[in-house]
Amino acid sequence: MATQGRVITCKAAVAWEANKPLVIEDVQVAPPQAGEVRIKILFTALCHTDAYTWSGKDPEGLFPCILGHEAAGIVESVGEGVTEVQPGDHVIPCYQAECRECKFCKSGKTNLCGKVRLATGVGVMLNDRKSRFSVNGKPIYHFMGTSTFSQYTVVHDVSVAKIHPQAPLEKVCLLGCGVPTGLGAVWNTAKVEAGSNVAIFGLGTVGLAVAEGAKTAGASRIIGVDIDSKKFDIAKKFGVNEFVNPKDHDKPIQQVIVDLTDGGVDYSFECIGNVSVMRAALECCHKGWGTSVIVGVAASGQEISTRPFQLVTGRVWKGTAFGGFKSRSQVPWLVDKYMNKEIKVDEYITHTMTLEDINKAFDLMHEGGCLRCVLALQP
Amino acid sequence: MATQGRVITCKAAVAWEANKPLVIEDVQVAPPQAGEVRIKILFTALCHTDAYTWSGKDPEGLFPCILGHEAAGIVESVGEGVTEVQPGDHVIPCYQAECRECKFCKSGKTNLCGKVRLATGVGVMLNDRKSRFSVNGKPIYHFMGTSTFSQYTVVHDVSVAKIHPQAPLEKVCLLGCGVPTGLGAVWNTAKVEAGSNVAIFGLGTVGLAVAEGAKTAGASRIIGVDIDSKKFDIAKKFGVNEFVNPKDHDKPIQQVIVDLTDGGVDYSFECIGNVSVMRAALECCHKGWGTSVIVGVAASGQEISTRPFQLVTGRVWKGTAFGGFKSRSQVPWLVDKYMNKEIKVDEYITHTMTLEDINKAFDLMHEGGCLRCVLALQP
Ligand SMILES: NC(=O)c1ccc[n+]([C@@H]2O[C@H](COP(=O)([O-])OP(=O)(O)OC[C@H]3O[C@@H](n4cnc5c(N)ncnc54)[C@H](O)[C@@H]3O)[C@@H](O)[C@H]2O)c1
Ligand SMILES: NC(=O)c1ccc[n+]([C@@H]2O[C@H](COP(=O)([O-])OP(=O)(O)OC[C@H]3O[C@@H](n4cnc5c(N)ncnc54)[C@H](O)[C@@H]3O)[C@@H](O)[C@H]2O)c1
Ligand SMILES: [Zn+2]
Ligand SMILES: [Zn+2]
Ligand SMILES: [Zn+2]
Ligand SMILES: [Zn+2]
Repeated sequence: MATQGRVITCKAAVAWEANKPLVIEDVQVAPPQAGEVRIKILFTALCHTDAYTWSGKDPEGLFPCILGHEAAGIVESVGEGVTEVQPGDHVIPCYQAECRECKFCKSGKTNLCGKVRLATGVGVMLNDRKSRFSVNGKPIYHFMGTSTFSQYTVVHDVSVAKIHPQAPLEKVCLLGCGVPTGLGAVWNTAKVEAGSNVAIFGLGTVGLAVAEGAKTAGASRIIGVDIDSKKFDIAKKFGVNEFVNPKDHDKPIQQVIVDLTDGGVDYSFECIGNVSVMRAALECCHKGWGTSVIVGVAASGQEISTRPFQLVTGRVWKGTAFGGFKSRSQVPWLVDKYMNKEIKVDEYITHTMTLEDINKAFDLMHEGGCLRCVLALQP
Repeated sequence: MATQGRVITCKAAVAWEANKPLVIEDVQVAPPQAGEVRIKILFTALCHTDAYTWSGKDPEGLFPCILGHEAAGIVESVGEGVTEVQPGDHVIPCYQAECRECKFCKSGKTNLCGKVRLATGVGVMLNDRKSRFSVNGKPIYHFMGTSTFSQYTVVHDVSVAKIHPQAPLEKVCLLGCGVPTGLGAVWNTAKVEAGSNVAIFGLGTVGLAVAEGAKTAGASRIIGVDIDSKKFDIAKKFGVNEFVNPKDHDKPIQQVIVDLTDGGVDYSFECIGNVSVMRAALECCHKGWGTSVIVGVAASGQEISTRPFQLVTGRVWKGTAFGGFKSRSQVPWLVDKYMNKEIKVDEYITHTMTLEDINKAFDLMHEGGCLRCVLALQP
């Protein structure tokens, strides 16, 4: 490729400061160094973690930065020693790396790879602890090791999932975060069995993916809980078969669910990021075996609490990151499942726009009607 | 038997009021009704739950009552329809029932039987919702469905484990609560694997039983944490191979353990009943997979808390009651294991006394040197 080994100047949405509109800039993207991959991003969706960091509420958020972590693209070039992908490969950048060598990867117990975390956590690349992005010489931080709100990005090779070359990138970009998180929370973290009763708190993309996961796992009752009743119609398509709006009840929502299910559900999922709902989700679980999985990400500094008796009498409290999926190994498998029509993806996409409209897209996230908004990055 | 069908008058320690010394009284024990068993108690130990209810801090505590739940005896007579035990059988009364018929028993997921709980929770028998104990006509409440601080007690048949007739009752009485709780927390609840690193908070009877359970499960590092360094010597015998006294450190104890273990332990157990230690026990677990089991019982109204991020990054928070053992099915198995020298029991007994000394025995519980004090009830 003509661009290989050279700096690429392209468009990216830069977050110069917390809570200020993103600015579309001409950004310089340096070539990938050893163990790095430069990707031409074709499509990116917006997720709440982007909005959270952008809002300035994330104490670890660094500015200026390029946000974005739910995307798909094509490898433009690779750095020294990169063997598993090559230019032209269709890929999904993964904020959760998978090196297959670290203590975490080798444990067989978790998907939380530790290899590049110390670098991605502070917005730089591992090789030289610097950023590959700059605007007129001023470095711009990376975000979550992905920074997909840019026409080109550089990521670590351990963070790239090579996918089926025929997969529609404008759809499968969603398999970079929200959808796998919900499916995996059910399949990998909770391991819901056929016949189970399930409660899902929050029916956004993540909660709906939990519903679909629960349905494919054979759950009998799938109770959707949301304060926005507009979510109930679409949720039916994803397998939710009972609906509860906490606003319709005077009793605490955990009590409503316990009453509805003769003692509580077998599994519950918090897909909002609200610590009091996390408590309710635990406490609506059945004594003796009910398991609650925290999927939502709460604001920094907030804490969950409950009476220890809830656990002593058999409830289990867990959480999940990227649904427990090993990114490089399993994202391609999810793409294949989508292509075989075994999992939904299109149905989450309620809006499509271009990079120029990214601030509008962020505004949309706060509207009930929006699940995922996908931005096209290339003209 | 001459006593069958008749009221028995015998000695029992009655807690007339919270926090007032127990009084040895002549108590009338009514014959067992349908589904009930009257047991001659030979030996009983004291456990912290007795002390807790006696202290008046348990809002569900009822007075006057006969406390005690860690004991062994011989069946004196049985009520109508009781088929699984008969007079003369050696038994351990179990505060955790096992009916094999209720939703809980049939779930295959928990040992928390629901059959008699509504009656035992309010100090009466299920059949007529009355007590079988009285002093000069005044009813005395049952406690935990066992009330073993009496020479005779009446329990539900679903709460009686028939054990090996040669088992030494003065020892195996301990298999009614603390020892199984610790062993089961490891074997049933946490399912510790060989090679694991384990931290145990609190090295009383329960914590030491956790240590023995971990050792037999093949754990490599068994770290005992106690503020009383006197516990460390005896703990070695139970398998603890590293010791940490929080008082020797300025850092929070969770940080001390994380540093000691290069990221945290695989399993931790809280065996104290202190909610801040419960938090520390969770937070000293390894990211990605560490599992913390709450065994200690906290005072009413107290709450546990942590940042949800602890769970989202892969830690699991659980609890256990009676170590997850199914009482009637598994207490006899534990007795056999003891008789085959596969588990310790004698080593927990630091004091022996008679019923008359029960108040002294309660005082002893607060002394570091005491693990279990066993009272002989028969002359
Ligand atoms: N653990 C992970 O790896 C991971 C990955 C992706 C997203 N997340 C998190 O998952 C959460 C959900 O993401 P999403 O994209 O589906 O969000 P979303 O905003 O689209 O959906 C949240 C839903 O919760 C509902 N809701 C809000 N408050 C409620 C309440 N008190 N009771 C009931 N319902 C309530 C809203 O009406 C909305 O429908 C976010 O916190 C996000 O950060 C976590
Ligand atoms: N879940 C159940 O089914 C079950 C059954 C039996 C007992 N229990 C509970 O288990 C707990 C332990 O019982 P036990 O008989 O072993 O009690 P114990 O009092 O003999 O032992 C507690 C130990 O904890 C230590 N300790 C106290 N505060 C500490 C701190 N802040 N940090 C470190 N160590 C500390 C003490 O020095 C002592 O050695 C109690 O809360 C009891 O009620 C629970
Ligand atoms: Zn996301
Ligand atoms: Zn790794
Ligand atoms: Zn006890
Ligand atoms: Zn039962």
